[in-house]
Amino acid sequence: MIKSDPLLRAFGKNVREARDSKRLTQEKLAEFAGLDPTYISGIERGVRNPGIRNVAKIAKALGVKTSDICKGVEA
Amino acid sequence: MIKSDPLLRAFGKNVREARDSKRLTQEKLAEFAGLDPTYISGIERGVRNPGIRNVAKIAKALGVKTSDICKGVEA
Repeated sequence: MIKSDPLLRAFGKNVREARDSKRLTQEKLAEFAGLDPTYISGIERGVRNPGIRNVAKIAKALGVKTSDICKGVEA
Repeated sequence: MIKSDPLLRAFGKNVREARDSKRLTQEKLAEFAGLDPTYISGIERGVRNPGIRNVAKIAKALGVKTSDICKGVEA
């Protein structure tokens, strides 16, 4: 875990909203993305700083573009 | 350094093209982003997997949105 900040929380919010809109559980999203459910949970809480590879995997699993889930995620 | 792949190369290409269009050197971009020039060089060669925080810092330093430099960066 790392110290949260507005940027990571903004990214986490994007992931959670996209996941909710697809009616996926965190477990299902993790399975589709090939990642651990606790990692997805940490991302949505803004306490993870995912690499661009995992960002892209999560986007693909959500059926959206990588740039879509990075909207509003500004330094 | 990590093993390159199409996704990381696509991201590196986006960074390099945005940097070239702003006529910035890698050193200047690194300075603006608060990152190391060798890290920027590695990103542009597709051998780095930057966290979303650094992706956002680089976008800000380039004067573009985070989602802009993630265009076409798909898993």
